[in-house]
Amino acid sequence: MVDVLKLGGSLLTDKTTPETIDEARLAEVAEVIAATDDCDLVLIHGGGSFGHPAAERHGMSPTAGTTNVSAVKDVTRAMRRFNDRVVDALQSVGIPAVGTQPFSCCRRTASGQLEVCAEPVKGQSEIGFLPVLHGDAIIDARAGATILSGDELAVELARSLGADRIGFCTGVPGVLDATNEVIPRIDSMEAVETVLTGTEGTDVTGGMAGKVELLLESSMPCAIFGPAELPAYLGGEFPGTRIGD
Amino acid sequence: MVDVLKLGGSLLTDKTTPETIDEARLAEVAEVIAATDDCDLVLIHGGGSFGHPAAERHGMSPTAGTTNVSAVKDVTRAMRRFNDRVVDALQSVGIPAVGTQPFSCCRRTASGQLEVCAEPVKGQSEIGFLPVLHGDAIIDARAGATILSGDELAVELARSLGADRIGFCTGVPGVLDATNEVIPRIDSMEAVETVLTGTEGTDVTGGMAGKVELLLESSMPCAIFGPAELPAYLGGEFPGTRIGD
Repeated sequence: MVDVLKLGGSLLTDKTTPETIDEARLAEVAEVIAATDDCDLVLIHGGGSFGHPAAERHGMSPTAGTTNVSAVKDVTRAMRRFNDRVVDALQSVGIPAVGTQPFSCCRRTASGQLEVCAEPVKGQSEIGFLPVLHGDAIIDARAGATILSGDELAVELARSLGADRIGFCTGVPGVLDATNEVIPRIDSMEAVETVLTGTEGTDVTGGMAGKVELLLESSMPCAIFGPAELPAYLGGEFPGTRIGD
Repeated sequence: MVDVLKLGGSLLTDKTTPETIDEARLAEVAEVIAATDDCDLVLIHGGGSFGHPAAERHGMSPTAGTTNVSAVKDVTRAMRRFNDRVVDALQSVGIPAVGTQPFSCCRRTASGQLEVCAEPVKGQSEIGFLPVLHGDAIIDARAGATILSGDELAVELARSLGADRIGFCTGVPGVLDATNEVIPRIDSMEAVETVLTGTEGTDVTGGMAGKVELLLESSMPCAIFGPAELPAYLGGEFPGTRIGD
């Protein structure tokens, strides 16, 4: 079973201090992944306190781009530093993790279509390695280079790999309703629109409404859950909020 | 005109000391490239004193692989450090250079075929960026991860990009005959076999005979020349040894 797991960037970093890893959380996540039998796992992490400050500094978002190579370097190297730390933590508990750079294998075309070259990642899985990708700056024919969120990459990569499901492990235990209760299942955007409107706008790469929309579009069984539910997810369950069939 | 230029790793580094850049040479090459009108240039550099010691440490070559992720990390990160220095030097003289990691966009299949995903590089050129790739460790379905030489990458990438020509800028002024004179033109391997046999064996990624063989197979007009001839090459000439039509 090919399982694409996105780990929220804010989950693994201290968002109040630039480029600061939440070491305890990262070690905990690594231990959980080391204990799983989920053999074809593909990991993706967000930008956290590495990518977001760099992207904001240069006014970059999924739609606002730059042709300044120095800005591109700033974002891609910050994300590499983050990815290196994640790969190192995973390798340190015996996971055969290898990093892959989206800037080198993804681009957006003139029509805004995201293209992901998944063959190297497929090859990594086939060898028995655990691929670890991340949000990044990528070439965008419309605007130089724009931001590719880890969320968008997870969904597109899952499609390219013919994945069986997608999990988003976030800082909250699922999609919350107006009374902060986890909504167990979402089958359409209309059903949750009123609830989700208020949570948008704090994250340039999508927020909770964006995640739900992306996952609904994936046509794959998906789950949004918190770190406490990670073992259950890796055990084959759909904890938190289940999205799609 | 799409022009793929491979810069020898030994040209840009001090091969006697691990991970040491030849700063004067790198600055000189950057100035020459900054002065050129060659608008669709794609650069590739070899491993030099970054990649070769790391590959040797782990017994890796284009055919001998490893499934040890720590070895893969060692080689890929050494090459990233080298590539970062090259990109920084190019950006410092105003060239819109961006690095691309072969580990993330190339692999060898079970039949040993090299696959290069060239779309992100194409996208970089279209935006007006100058892509800078390098020799690297890549996924190899036969053996875990093996070494991709800058020479092999240059030829395969040139093919994918539909390049007009390939230039190899090396530490020598061209392919030398038995009396150390530059052979002006080579049209077949047979014509130079006797001369080249003696120079093989010192470089795991091919040596001069390997370069000539690769370039003959490319079916593109190519040149092998020294750094003094780089301005002439970028001016459209075929200095040193011309290979193919």
